[in-house]
Amino acid sequence: MKNKAIMSRDIDFAKWYTDVVKAAHLADYSNVKGCIVFEPRGYALWEKMQQVLDEMFKKTGHQNVYMPLLIPENLLEKEGELIQGFSPEVAWVTKGGEKDLEERLCIRPTSETLFSDYYSNVVKSYRDLPLKYNQWCSVMRWEKETRPFLRSREFLWQEGHTVHETQEEAENETKQMLNIYRTFFEDYLAIPVITGKKTEKEKFSGAEYTLTIEAMMYNGITLQSATSHYFGQKFSKAYDISFKDRNNQLSYCYQTSWGSSTRMIGALIMVHSDDNGLVLPPKIAPVQVCIVPIQMTEKVLDEGEKIKKKLEEAGITVTIDKTDKSAGFKFSEAEVSGVPIRIEVGERDLEQDKIVLVRRDTGVKKEVSLDENIEKVIQNEMECMQQEMFNRAKKRTDSFTFTCHHLDEVRNQIEKQPGFIHAMWCGDEACELKMKEINGLKSRCILEDGEKIDEKCVVCGGKAKHHVVWGIQY
Amino acid sequence: MKNKAIMSRDIDFAKWYTDVVKAAHLADYSNVKGCIVFEPRGYALWEKMQQVLDEMFKKTGHQNVYMPLLIPENLLEKEGELIQGFSPEVAWVTKGGEKDLEERLCIRPTSETLFSDYYSNVVKSYRDLPLKYNQWCSVMRWEKETRPFLRSREFLWQEGHTVHETQEEAENETKQMLNIYRTFFEDYLAIPVITGKKTEKEKFSGAEYTLTIEAMMYNGITLQSATSHYFGQKFSKAYDISFKDRNNQLSYCYQTSWGSSTRMIGALIMVHSDDNGLVLPPKIAPVQVCIVPIQMTEKVLDEGEKIKKKLEEAGITVTIDKTDKSAGFKFSEAEVSGVPIRIEVGERDLEQDKIVLVRRDTGVKKEVSLDENIEKVIQNEMECMQQEMFNRAKKRTDSFTFTCHHLDEVRNQIEKQPGFIHAMWCGDEACELKMKEINGLKSRCILEDGEKIDEKCVVCGGKAKHHVVWGIQY
Repeated sequence: MKNKAIMSRDIDFAKWYTDVVKAAHLADYSNVKGCIVFEPRGYALWEKMQQVLDEMFKKTGHQNVYMPLLIPENLLEKEGELIQGFSPEVAWVTKGGEKDLEERLCIRPTSETLFSDYYSNVVKSYRDLPLKYNQWCSVMRWEKETRPFLRSREFLWQEGHTVHETQEEAENETKQMLNIYRTFFEDYLAIPVITGKKTEKEKFSGAEYTLTIEAMMYNGITLQSATSHYFGQKFSKAYDISFKDRNNQLSYCYQTSWGSSTRMIGALIMVHSDDNGLVLPPKIAPVQVCIVPIQMTEKVLDEGEKIKKKLEEAGITVTIDKTDKSAGFKFSEAEVSGVPIRIEVGERDLEQDKIVLVRRDTGVKKEVSLDENIEKVIQNEMECMQQEMFNRAKKRTDSFTFTCHHLDEVRNQIEKQPGFIHAMWCGDEACELKMKEINGLKSRCILEDGEKIDEKCVVCGGKAKHHVVWGIQY
Repeated sequence: MKNKAIMSRDIDFAKWYTDVVKAAHLADYSNVKGCIVFEPRGYALWEKMQQVLDEMFKKTGHQNVYMPLLIPENLLEKEGELIQGFSPEVAWVTKGGEKDLEERLCIRPTSETLFSDYYSNVVKSYRDLPLKYNQWCSVMRWEKETRPFLRSREFLWQEGHTVHETQEEAENETKQMLNIYRTFFEDYLAIPVITGKKTEKEKFSGAEYTLTIEAMMYNGITLQSATSHYFGQKFSKAYDISFKDRNNQLSYCYQTSWGSSTRMIGALIMVHSDDNGLVLPPKIAPVQVCIVPIQMTEKVLDEGEKIKKKLEEAGITVTIDKTDKSAGFKFSEAEVSGVPIRIEVGERDLEQDKIVLVRRDTGVKKEVSLDENIEKVIQNEMECMQQEMFNRAKKRTDSFTFTCHHLDEVRNQIEKQPGFIHAMWCGDEACELKMKEINGLKSRCILEDGEKIDEKCVVCGGKAKHHVVWGIQY
């Protein structure tokens, strides 16, 4: 039975998206324009993402720190490109208490400037390097149009900032972090991604180059999902992050930054969820199993508690819904909030020594005998589900991936079904802008070892330089 | 050998404090006035505190959420007392991008207003209650004089906000959270506290009453360390958080809030640390054991790794210092950063099948045979250390606790040695102000079941109402 609070995603995808956010109680609109309230289920999802990523960061030698929320204007202006990229969209603090400030301060839109300023104070010798820091915080960008998780004035994220002795080490770091994001997306979020380099036009303001992971949503629209930037010595020269090198000469650091945000919650929704609400891959679900007692009798509740205990001991996150609501209501609650597996425990089944297990992604029911090793059954089921969710997303991504050789072909394809368009490009920004005229199509990334699929640029017919993937973006 | 980078705490306590912060690399000053950089060791301490408290909150049925950073002025003004208390010290955002905002927004100094606004949207029936939410975030108060961790414009904290059906339930929540803070201070931070109710003058703006935990620092100055507020229906009436009660009548919620902050790092320093740097109780130390190889030979390193593995398997957090620095340098690094136990592994000791263990708080060395169960030895040592650190702090607190009956007595005592002054009070604010003339002495709290130690108010000699503890505060 379809959830009536949710629009069908095939009829109105945008409304379906916000309906799922509301119905699953992930977030609520706030009275602060452009900012959302992260409700318990939405925040729990973020906590789970934080936990997995934070462990990956720490295992690769990164440490967490916390920099100030505010950036003095003169500090922000030291690196010319960055400020140009961000100044139209920062919020300015001009008053402290009842006094006008001598210098206005912006709320961080990103913290390259603060990290650079700090590094310039503490880095003295090659022995101090590398410094590999990360922070979890909120940032503010004064966006005009907003959509929960995908684009809002304030969002939560992590931003890693590292300084290194050599270019090679910094470039390796840039790649390593991209790979960590890729692993996280594919293995935890069950979202296939393509990776590559951003074009000059699309790279992060101030970076030498930007690596990106790009994912495709259910409707063929693409999402820039996490990025890793190589700065070379741009910031270290602007902020004087210099050090005595091994030859006792003054050198400038090589720098990186990399980030991922609550936008990933938006990706999870738009890739996996359905007309009944949220669908979560088991490895990222804050609650993996919900036990629903069909009747609130002692026998049923006892059995429910017994199963809960067994699963918890096996490291599975379980809740048991003991509210006085109807079983049907509880089913739909577990469903809308994306709990991967629901266990139904009822009098009739117990008489036959069995329980029923229902998978959220497929809705398939399975009877499990009480003799079976329930934790093993659940673990297997969750592994299958994780893999199958990835496979389905991969299959869809592949089916929405097209190769084009001429501009007309691109136009026809995008009008029929948007997706990833593979096409060759001459490297000229004018051709990028020409592509943009087609429903706002943008370059997603230049494939690192992209096959040469044509000799000519898809736009101008000039000599092709790069194999680029294009797409309409959120 | 004394750490030369650190002033003696008996000579200049204030300088000693900032020296410890710097030398232990807990925090650095930033170029943003009044804001600090939380360096890896400082932030790791905060992460550990978060982890322990968060678990306690979740076990008692609280859920994490995240509210916007900014509060529109009209929303802030709905509750009159709160705005009066905070408006002189908030930072105002007046520009977004290049445009002046129609309504200015303040950076949250605390989030009662935002939670109340949210609750007023989602609470409809007694069935929706209680809602027990908490958030971890940063807040901003435009302080003039700042000191790392103790008072800064931006600090990190958690703020819990709950709404309840009945007064009793809300009051119980207020008490429960105070008790959680007390347990955390005593059992984890090894800091004894006194608890009670704030006077009208000292309570949180907008609260019906405020419960507090107060701790005493090494020098006899006191620190308000965490607070739990009962709001009654003040905010629920101002923000219209109403619900259909069990009799189908419209009722207003009863509300609480409670918070603790990175100020606790300041308390840890000022209670336990010494002239050689930070001293941390084992239960809150991010790194519990540091293994120092005296020589960087294969034999020594192998033994070090073996010990590390054993300890890690027992759930102890261990590092091994394999840098090319001298053993003496490594000792002092472990010391200044407050690692509870240092293990020295050296060629000569290994020949006799032993290693040396050094406790940070006492400096006492102990030889341990390689035959012994090293994880057991360390665990016992850490338990002792945790208890002894508490005992020492308790003994000092007791020795700086005084009972006074007359104003002269108070004055003499404070000039000789500040501490906790127990004295009776008539309840009149004029008498509180009179006390403040003595070196800024303030009421810390009214003891809940305080013994009646006099018939008369210590200031005016009028009829005594409350047993109050007074102190000079940070």
